[in-house]
Amino acid sequence: MRHTLNPLVRSLAWAMPLLAAASLATAADGKSVSQTDMAYQAGGSPLAKEAMHQNINPKAPPMTAAEFERAKQIYFERCAGCHGVLRKGATGKALTPDITLGKGTDYLKVFIAYGSPAGMPNWQTSGEMSEQDVDLMARYIQQEPPTPPEFSLADIEKTRKIYVPVEQRPTRKMNHYNLDNLFSVTLRDSGEVALIDGDTKQIINIVKTGYAVHISRLSKSGRYLYVIGRDARLNLIDLWMAKPDNVAEIKVGLEARSVETSKFKGFEDKIAVAGTYWPPQFVIMDGDTLKPRKVVSTRGMTVDNEYHPEPRVASIVASHYRPEFVINAKETGKIMMVDYSDLNNLKTTTIDSAKFLHDGGFDSTGRYFLVAANASNKIAVVDTKEDKLAALVDVGKTPHPGRGANFTHPKYGPVWATSHLGAEDVTLIGTDPVKHKPYAWKAVEVLKGQGGGSLFIKTHPKSSNLWVDTPLNPDAKMSQSVAVFDIKNLNKPPQIVDVAACAQLGDGAKRVVQPEYNKAGTEVWFSVWSAKDKESAIVVVDDKTRQCKQVIKDKRLITPTGKFNVYNTQHDVY
Amino acid sequence: MRHTLNPLVRSLAWAMPLLAAASLATAADGKSVSQTDMAYQAGGSPLAKEAMHQNINPKAPPMTAAEFERAKQIYFERCAGCHGVLRKGATGKALTPDITLGKGTDYLKVFIAYGSPAGMPNWQTSGEMSEQDVDLMARYIQQEPPTPPEFSLADIEKTRKIYVPVEQRPTRKMNHYNLDNLFSVTLRDSGEVALIDGDTKQIINIVKTGYAVHISRLSKSGRYLYVIGRDARLNLIDLWMAKPDNVAEIKVGLEARSVETSKFKGFEDKIAVAGTYWPPQFVIMDGDTLKPRKVVSTRGMTVDNEYHPEPRVASIVASHYRPEFVINAKETGKIMMVDYSDLNNLKTTTIDSAKFLHDGGFDSTGRYFLVAANASNKIAVVDTKEDKLAALVDVGKTPHPGRGANFTHPKYGPVWATSHLGAEDVTLIGTDPVKHKPYAWKAVEVLKGQGGGSLFIKTHPKSSNLWVDTPLNPDAKMSQSVAVFDIKNLNKPPQIVDVAACAQLGDGAKRVVQPEYNKAGTEVWFSVWSAKDKESAIVVVDDKTRQCKQVIKDKRLITPTGKFNVYNTQHDVY
Repeated sequence: MRHTLNPLVRSLAWAMPLLAAASLATAADGKSVSQTDMAYQAGGSPLAKEAMHQNINPKAPPMTAAEFERAKQIYFERCAGCHGVLRKGATGKALTPDITLGKGTDYLKVFIAYGSPAGMPNWQTSGEMSEQDVDLMARYIQQEPPTPPEFSLADIEKTRKIYVPVEQRPTRKMNHYNLDNLFSVTLRDSGEVALIDGDTKQIINIVKTGYAVHISRLSKSGRYLYVIGRDARLNLIDLWMAKPDNVAEIKVGLEARSVETSKFKGFEDKIAVAGTYWPPQFVIMDGDTLKPRKVVSTRGMTVDNEYHPEPRVASIVASHYRPEFVINAKETGKIMMVDYSDLNNLKTTTIDSAKFLHDGGFDSTGRYFLVAANASNKIAVVDTKEDKLAALVDVGKTPHPGRGANFTHPKYGPVWATSHLGAEDVTLIGTDPVKHKPYAWKAVEVLKGQGGGSLFIKTHPKSSNLWVDTPLNPDAKMSQSVAVFDIKNLNKPPQIVDVAACAQLGDGAKRVVQPEYNKAGTEVWFSVWSAKDKESAIVVVDDKTRQCKQVIKDKRLITPTGKFNVYNTQHDVY
Repeated sequence: MRHTLNPLVRSLAWAMPLLAAASLATAADGKSVSQTDMAYQAGGSPLAKEAMHQNINPKAPPMTAAEFERAKQIYFERCAGCHGVLRKGATGKALTPDITLGKGTDYLKVFIAYGSPAGMPNWQTSGEMSEQDVDLMARYIQQEPPTPPEFSLADIEKTRKIYVPVEQRPTRKMNHYNLDNLFSVTLRDSGEVALIDGDTKQIINIVKTGYAVHISRLSKSGRYLYVIGRDARLNLIDLWMAKPDNVAEIKVGLEARSVETSKFKGFEDKIAVAGTYWPPQFVIMDGDTLKPRKVVSTRGMTVDNEYHPEPRVASIVASHYRPEFVINAKETGKIMMVDYSDLNNLKTTTIDSAKFLHDGGFDSTGRYFLVAANASNKIAVVDTKEDKLAALVDVGKTPHPGRGANFTHPKYGPVWATSHLGAEDVTLIGTDPVKHKPYAWKAVEVLKGQGGGSLFIKTHPKSSNLWVDTPLNPDAKMSQSVAVFDIKNLNKPPQIVDVAACAQLGDGAKRVVQPEYNKAGTEVWFSVWSAKDKESAIVVVDDKTRQCKQVIKDKRLITPTGKFNVYNTQHDVY
């Protein structure tokens, strides 16, 4: 049974750590950001090092100190994304010694080597781990999990660099780029973002950033671009410079996914927040200097009122209705509405939703925030005006909306859509509790995409197309193409567009990922993403004709993944 | 130097664990609540037991499993109150292996045996630990601290007992007691409270409770009495019964200090909250059944933005201005205003004050809450109407107000007073920011009491006396007497009243502790507290004449300590 998995399940299983771990992570080059993390830890404080010491469990199979260190590093790179740093489980199962010791080394080795239909990758048979490493990991997970060091405000502040002080920055826009149509593109494996002029398709600059930048976010004015790497390195880029580039940088922890900036009236461009996977906390900073002002731990109770030591911060968005950030704690299922107007008397409304919160976006009005509780197969809806849970909507297996897609359905009125990692479903949820009340916060329709393994879905207010990618589908035909629905005729099956073919790349696995519109809503950009040592490309599709319009290739475009159009990101247009 | 300590310091040092650990704890009988806790843990879930397993540190001196278990128990009984369960330090220093391993066994043995002028008790020379136990503890604190089990809502609910269901309780008062003048008196070492009729001085009932009940609190209506033991056992007593007794009980954790009930309009008698030292969290319950509804962890950042794993919940009071509890986390210095009106969308304002929050009370208007940050030598003032910090006031060494004392000063207007553990000072703080603005939130005057070692101070709106106890003063004359100031003539030195003499008890240490007024403000009750196997008493002093009026003795009054008059407690009169 273990050896005859359904190929879709196998592929998803293989992809799982990537999903939990990063934007579009694949360890194709065998390296990982966590090597940086480990180096960082090694250089940390004596207390930090102490906290990482080898913790010998007399009941577990023996390991040398060197073996323990190597296993710790492999675990951080390959396993922590799904199973958690403390091995309490999330997308993957809990792997604490009270569980693993009972299984024994032989059982664990088989599991690690061959994977499971439930989503565990086949590390040995896929060639990604040697037999020796599988044995090492089977022993390692019977030891007590070592706890990585904490990261206080003082620790964070020590990492901060100002490249251009505020007083030396431009006081007006010093370039002639149409910044509204600029794209910030993650170059995953090179630890950079490419700033691409959306009008000319020219690369404006390649900016050094953290590894595998997970998201780009714009300040309210659109001037400042914030990008955060999986290694928790946060870069602040000033788009007003003649050549936009880094002006400040900080490392907010060891592993991170999210950054956001204040959008409420009176706080434009003033405040930034970054959420970390480790330590499980978030840090509130000055928007223009990244000076950390307050660190808040997310450790605490799950929605089931059980203590969780590692509630990782998933997505963060800024409320349009209050001076608040909406901060989602993955493992606890708690959505925190954090008021940034008075950090010394910090008001927070903690909304109970469902466990395993991940990604999400606003409805078309900007009032409701819809967030996937992915391993709970639910979408939680938060009313950011009332600071209350509006609904918990049951959906298909493992929703993964990115920020989702808003459009007006012919029958159900305004809807928000998500695609799914675990199913070919595209679920539409009614979002208008006033004029379409019977449909509000219900899964009103499920479209059938071309297959599972989807990460992102996108449309635009000026378009009637709904694009759905399937980069993690095991079938190369599907992972290299995308489905596009006609919003005005949703009964019609989607058209399949072979985006990878347009790119005319050579051999090797190619994944077409993340549709992103230009400002006008006339073009859709896709990443055609290959291994680090192979050529990748960005394909621009004409939204009206659904035909390839232009291919952006450049030797500097190494493993492009997420793309963020300035205007659409700034204004939550999706 | 170690052998020639100042007697006051020695005595305070001896008392320190007690102060941090309980109302007026002394382990005179050599037993402790933590034996119950350990028994509880032993009966806990497999996961809980796993969490308590022996954690062998290869760098530390060896211990057998039996030695480790014995040391763990002694640590919990004697050391945890000051040094914390996880040994991160609070009133006492941090004792984690990164610190203790460097000191070595011999150094640690000397320190444990002889104590230090900074407050460490002389465990061996005082006769409270054998030489063998000192050696054991010196080795133990070089091992990694074992983490006690968590306590989820489900764990808490399992301990709940309903003695009289709500529907079988009286619908009106079924007795003829003047409940307003009833006193709930902690019988520390017997794990009981005595309910005493304040008019007749007769014992109405002796009610079984947790060990060393730390406080009694009344529901808004005055019907329900909540008492919480150091062992985190919470009892609900219905004063409407013909013979008031327990109607419900629950164990909210392993160690606790605080309980409070909802007082805001519309929530009278509806909601209870209890805060625990371990686990570091609080639980919100239904007021009449103690059914737990929500558990909130206090783990998180200190006011210095450093993570703390064990922020113990100290005092809790109910706001009169909002549907909120004011919950004080000791180690982090965070004051949480927790809105109990919507537990699923839980609003909390977290106010940064100063580390080591302990006890406190309201000003005379009920708007401002003043709480001691004892090891920071500060009083934090919270505006419960605006949910903001009003001030941080520097005061003398280790303030210990209990709930403090409010009166009108001839010059400074309304003031709130605290006495001190670490000084003979009685500090008066102005509390009227409207008519006496220059004096508000300033230490306007410091009176000199008879000595240090004070725990409680008290007056009454109908009295012009200010009573200050000194139970922890090493001089028996002081610990057995109290000082009383004339509020109308504060320049006059206090009169010293030898309360213990009135009680006419036999040999043995006697400590006179905690003045508590009757409802009318005409009598002050004091506990004259002796060892468990010796006679104790309650002495009632006539407030006008300052003469002993009556002595309450009864063989059932075993080690009486804290006394809570129903009316005064219910209405925050102090």
